[in-house]
Amino acid sequence: MSIHVVILAGGAGTRFWPAGRHDRPKQLLPIASEHSMLRETLERCAPLAPAERTWIVTNDRQATDTQAEAPELPAAQILAEPHMRNTAAAIALAAARIARVDSDAIMVVLPADHVIRPPELFARTFEAAAQRARDAGTLITIGIEPSGPATGYGYIESGERVAEVEGFEVRSVKSFKEKPDARTAADFLAAGGYFWNAGTFVWSVAAFLDALGEHLPGHQKVLDAMAPELDAGSAPSAELYARFENVPVDIGIMERASNVEVIPAAFDWDDVGSWLALDRLRPRDGNGNVVTGEHVGIDTRDCIVIGRSDHVISTVEVADLIIVSTPDATLVCSKNRAEDVKKIVAELKAKGRDTYL
Amino acid sequence: MSIHVVILAGGAGTRFWPAGRHDRPKQLLPIASEHSMLRETLERCAPLAPAERTWIVTNDRQATDTQAEAPELPAAQILAEPHMRNTAAAIALAAARIARVDSDAIMVVLPADHVIRPPELFARTFEAAAQRARDAGTLITIGIEPSGPATGYGYIESGERVAEVEGFEVRSVKSFKEKPDARTAADFLAAGGYFWNAGTFVWSVAAFLDALGEHLPGHQKVLDAMAPELDAGSAPSAELYARFENVPVDIGIMERASNVEVIPAAFDWDDVGSWLALDRLRPRDGNGNVVTGEHVGIDTRDCIVIGRSDHVISTVEVADLIIVSTPDATLVCSKNRAEDVKKIVAELKAKGRDTYL
Repeated sequence: MSIHVVILAGGAGTRFWPAGRHDRPKQLLPIASEHSMLRETLERCAPLAPAERTWIVTNDRQATDTQAEAPELPAAQILAEPHMRNTAAAIALAAARIARVDSDAIMVVLPADHVIRPPELFARTFEAAAQRARDAGTLITIGIEPSGPATGYGYIESGERVAEVEGFEVRSVKSFKEKPDARTAADFLAAGGYFWNAGTFVWSVAAFLDALGEHLPGHQKVLDAMAPELDAGSAPSAELYARFENVPVDIGIMERASNVEVIPAAFDWDDVGSWLALDRLRPRDGNGNVVTGEHVGIDTRDCIVIGRSDHVISTVEVADLIIVSTPDATLVCSKNRAEDVKKIVAELKAKGRDTYL
Repeated sequence: MSIHVVILAGGAGTRFWPAGRHDRPKQLLPIASEHSMLRETLERCAPLAPAERTWIVTNDRQATDTQAEAPELPAAQILAEPHMRNTAAAIALAAARIARVDSDAIMVVLPADHVIRPPELFARTFEAAAQRARDAGTLITIGIEPSGPATGYGYIESGERVAEVEGFEVRSVKSFKEKPDARTAADFLAAGGYFWNAGTFVWSVAAFLDALGEHLPGHQKVLDAMAPELDAGSAPSAELYARFENVPVDIGIMERASNVEVIPAAFDWDDVGSWLALDRLRPRDGNGNVVTGEHVGIDTRDCIVIGRSDHVISTVEVADLIIVSTPDATLVCSKNRAEDVKKIVAELKAKGRDTYL
């Protein structure tokens, strides 16, 4: 029972505009380091599975750039969705392909655009989860120990402790909670036993396909219809793919299944939700600035300056700004409005300025 | 006695970086409107003299761009200094050339990078000054009625009223004052009879060359040595030009001569000293922003946004900023530090980043 890594890389984030574009989402950008987030995810997963057991689910438009970031992967293991149909469909597609090459596989499923450190603890956590999935046949999610009452994530309410594997606790799952308000989040932390839902899963391909058949039979039917392409390892037809219900795996399967467990993770985790994440992930200089590319600053404090090597950004007496320069667009945004970058994207779209999207 | 217009366009301003560069000074930029300041100056002067009596003094590096902005001028009337030797030398060069084609000429001398409105009042003022220079043989400077106790300009202390020409008062000049401190500037305004020195002059070429011989005999000697080139209308030799003393005409001649007069001007005048001038010269939108190029702003107030047609600048919750985007450089500067743009240029120079200068 070997581990297969499935990296979900199909997002279309708008929060990293103008570096992030329609065809160049967060995972293809060098956010946390000089390498793309996808590249960092591949490096992080390498100890779990070699390239021949690593899969990426992306979409048609990003497939070429994705392959370029993952040159070690066989082209057939980069699965390009012809439509966006959310995580249940993306994972079902990967599971159906993996089942055909290794019916005993253990799947490790995780997003391409999170930062997890240190890599050794990441690998040990997922190896323990894989061992539990192998032994117990359960559907396992990795829960993140909350560092505060965040309202930006879903929560996992755990039940009793059911096992310990390689020093990692395994707990049953009582329920999945939507993103809470501040008061509810504080209640979760006070009660204890709540973890952030990071969208990372470990299970055997058999257990997953069983659960799919039981809880999302519509998905199973699409896979059945897709059997010729899946057998041949060719791209799924757009017409068939469009039939998948648009539902996240959390809601479609995890909330409904009874054999769900959580393994609390002790690693540092960041979902890199906006440009503001760079303050956490990158070193700051003596003035509190995070800088990439060429910058000349006078009286510049606590700014995030994302430039280029052939372009200088200069700043005079500014503070707490996010400044991003690309060849065709510049962003100057107050740090406390980092979330509103997507409003800029929406306004450009409304104005028909598609060239900037 | 015909008017010859002499436009001084040899500056190397750094305050409009990054739009302004070493080889692209303020007068070649579209600051006050969509046309360059030099182009606007040419249009403003057209009623005073036709193209065949209009001259521009610039320098070697900017000569090509200057000619492009002034296609109606004969190439021989664009005088390119091989070295920067300040206004006394630039004007002496022009005077010596003009004397050879029209020894009776009246010279109107003014910088290429000021904004003067309305054009009708400009023309009437300088025509009156030309008439006085013709009749009295005096050296006339146009003084600007101060709108406040500015410390950024030199002042002209006027004496008694000596004449009136076409409704314009002509006063004697007691002294030229360097840029004053705030208290002295306030004293000037309280005393009355003080005007801003705008570096604009009207005189007969004969009166100017007389004054040059008397007060700057070194300049006269250089002109004598240059006679063959001046006779031929060819470019002055770099070796000879380097011999000119580096002195402004105000100090070299106007402060020393006894036949100096001032005509107070009633037109609006702006020396466009920094990006901040755009707040005065360009229309603001409903949020107090001055915008050129493509801009998408959310909660953006009182900013000066200088963009491009093929590049979008987007701003979220910012105020009182100057934002300028060019292909290889971006400026984000607090409005109250507009003067410090030159410090950015100095730092780039110190770092050897000449590509951005």
